[in-house]
Amino acid sequence: MSKLARGVAIIGAGMSKFGAFKDKTTRELFVEAFLEAKSSVDNGIDVKDIEALFLGNFSNDIFEGQVHTGPLMANMVGITPAPAMKIEDACASSGVALRLGILAIASGVHDIVCVGGVEKMTNLETARVTDVLASAADAFYEFPAGATFPGLYAEMANAHMKRYGTTIEQLRLVGIKNHENGALNPKAQFQASIRDIMKSRMEKAKAKGLPVPTWKDEMEFLEDPVANPIIAWPLRLFDCSPITDGAAVVILAAEEIARKFTDTPIYVAGTGQGSDALALHDREDLTSLRAARVAAREAYRMAGVEPKDIQLAEVHDCFTIAEIVATEDLGFFKPGEGGKAVEEGVTKRDGEKPINTSGGLKAKGHPVGASGAAQVVEIWHQLRGSAGPRQVSGVELALTHNVGGSGASCAVHIFRR
Amino acid sequence: MSKLARGVAIIGAGMSKFGAFKDKTTRELFVEAFLEAKSSVDNGIDVKDIEALFLGNFSNDIFEGQVHTGPLMANMVGITPAPAMKIEDACASSGVALRLGILAIASGVHDIVCVGGVEKMTNLETARVTDVLASAADAFYEFPAGATFPGLYAEMANAHMKRYGTTIEQLRLVGIKNHENGALNPKAQFQASIRDIMKSRMEKAKAKGLPVPTWKDEMEFLEDPVANPIIAWPLRLFDCSPITDGAAVVILAAEEIARKFTDTPIYVAGTGQGSDALALHDREDLTSLRAARVAAREAYRMAGVEPKDIQLAEVHDCFTIAEIVATEDLGFFKPGEGGKAVEEGVTKRDGEKPINTSGGLKAKGHPVGASGAAQVVEIWHQLRGSAGPRQVSGVELALTHNVGGSGASCAVHIFRR
Repeated sequence: MSKLARGVAIIGAGMSKFGAFKDKTTRELFVEAFLEAKSSVDNGIDVKDIEALFLGNFSNDIFEGQVHTGPLMANMVGITPAPAMKIEDACASSGVALRLGILAIASGVHDIVCVGGVEKMTNLETARVTDVLASAADAFYEFPAGATFPGLYAEMANAHMKRYGTTIEQLRLVGIKNHENGALNPKAQFQASIRDIMKSRMEKAKAKGLPVPTWKDEMEFLEDPVANPIIAWPLRLFDCSPITDGAAVVILAAEEIARKFTDTPIYVAGTGQGSDALALHDREDLTSLRAARVAAREAYRMAGVEPKDIQLAEVHDCFTIAEIVATEDLGFFKPGEGGKAVEEGVTKRDGEKPINTSGGLKAKGHPVGASGAAQVVEIWHQLRGSAGPRQVSGVELALTHNVGGSGASCAVHIFRR
Repeated sequence: MSKLARGVAIIGAGMSKFGAFKDKTTRELFVEAFLEAKSSVDNGIDVKDIEALFLGNFSNDIFEGQVHTGPLMANMVGITPAPAMKIEDACASSGVALRLGILAIASGVHDIVCVGGVEKMTNLETARVTDVLASAADAFYEFPAGATFPGLYAEMANAHMKRYGTTIEQLRLVGIKNHENGALNPKAQFQASIRDIMKSRMEKAKAKGLPVPTWKDEMEFLEDPVANPIIAWPLRLFDCSPITDGAAVVILAAEEIARKFTDTPIYVAGTGQGSDALALHDREDLTSLRAARVAAREAYRMAGVEPKDIQLAEVHDCFTIAEIVATEDLGFFKPGEGGKAVEEGVTKRDGEKPINTSGGLKAKGHPVGASGAAQVVEIWHQLRGSAGPRQVSGVELALTHNVGGSGASCAVHIFRR
């Protein structure tokens, strides 16, 4: 196990609008993302030059009754008859698809490949979606015992609070920060800060002649059991990422040809992946994800950099506690100090270590199979200086961290301008 | 697009018994296959030396209610915390997983990886299994119109018969040949020739005091509408592969270290993959699979060999017509001459071009996500001279051909002793 036999760069990236689109299919979402990625290639690219599609998807099997989604999506955009396949690692599906696309180019077999992710979740009712997602936990031991992901992450949150003194306020601050970022992202499902949402609720109540709530600030709003009900203690609704439809696409090329397509390729500096037992009861620790630590170690080693060198990261905040754990697993903060970092504003857009400038899964939305690829879309923009009002200045080295399930999979990638 | 940046070899291979095992889970089937593969490594291997798991699986999502099957299987055999993921391309899932495992080693990132496939299909009733499989066809245009795979392959059979004069007898002869091979394979679901099955039915009738059927030979048995009912004309029951539970595992290593593990590694000479539209109505031709032709062309080019050089092949005979089409797509016979080749015995075990010595999907069984890897298990034995009574002598160059759905995916691999 060593280095990539040849370098790989991103030459294009795009995503669909994220949200709840009852009238759209996976095909339409994927095409929307693909067309944006294709047109983002500065000097243009012919679809016939794309030699393979690595598609991340969780379970189109159940959500849309369609398996064999790889060649179907390839056919929708003209990649046929090139190789196309689906990669699945729960919510890390397209992060892992990215890794396999990188390896395919490094192998010498392909020069240009497309990596994508798509998920159409709103075809089913929320309770059924929660059950389908729970099949990424252990279907023999966890799900039959009543466990779904909010409950599993709540266990992690409780363990983290007990061991390190992480506070409920710190959890809520993750959501507040990510919604503030999402408010600036036109692709986000919730293009609104929590303050915006709170004010809009007050205005609606007023307009309807109902009693107007008297929340004095976001924190009071977030502790209101009606406005923000408990899902699984200590996680409330605004600690959980939403159910989302969406797609994201990244186009990769071998380093030696990347400049044919763009003057500003984004280089893959490191890729790492790890796995773990599905069931929490088989893990040694509930306050950290082993798969993430393994993935991060490999990515850092390959890139030859350290956590302190990373200027900006998109991490897997499927629940607010997950972001805190992620920033510790990635070595940005010592174990137990992730909550404090949020409280001190270190992870805000203008902080020392901006995390989830896109809005994260929390505000941008979480179409599970597409989230890993969508993280890369944000990094692409931040490294190229095209992130608009979300832009952090001078970003040269950035990271994505994409987790599957309650942590049985994780892919970490490091990118360099 | 060129060659593998470094060579790859198989150092171990194994499979579970194939069949209908109501009391087994995917976990047990995978462990059974993995342990056989591990113990087949001549000089032994420590599971901790395996750096990743590439798992082919069609839809454990629906069959077992368990997604995220990659890290789960990895955890069952001790591969945790190494990368593990599921690869899906319908029935070509583990053929494609093999390709990605090969590319991962060629990329320089991994030295030793495990490629597997698993499917547990008999949890559901046959009619429901047929529907689940049909979700690998186009779920918007084909399935709602009543199409399932027997019907789609029947359309191909009718087109082939009309265009080339392929006969019903030639279709049936594919099944007869593959059952003759399966009779010699202790891992096969049907370890019986069609003559054996016919005789056993006669004996059973006699023992029960029922009227004894008077089939004079296999062909008469196969045209009996009670013994061998029509599924979708011209395909009868014995033209269709069965519903099967099973798993298969292959262990790959970089060429330069393979001889540490065995004196007889089997080298990967070529890998190719292609895709096509899911729906038959989007294809130019029903008598040939474009994805297979593309995959074969790439594999031959990489291996630097021609169809005539291949001494033995495992091809995707999900239906009898599929084997005939496969042998034409692979260039073994000219378009339209595959049926005649079967009739002339060319594809029998003692013929010039033995096809499906394992019994093929027809007799060995077809646990869809495992079939591609199981083809490689047969090739491993044939190239090493360990295929027992099925052994074909002097095999130096062999091929596998693994198709997804009605041909929207195909992986072709060429192996050299």
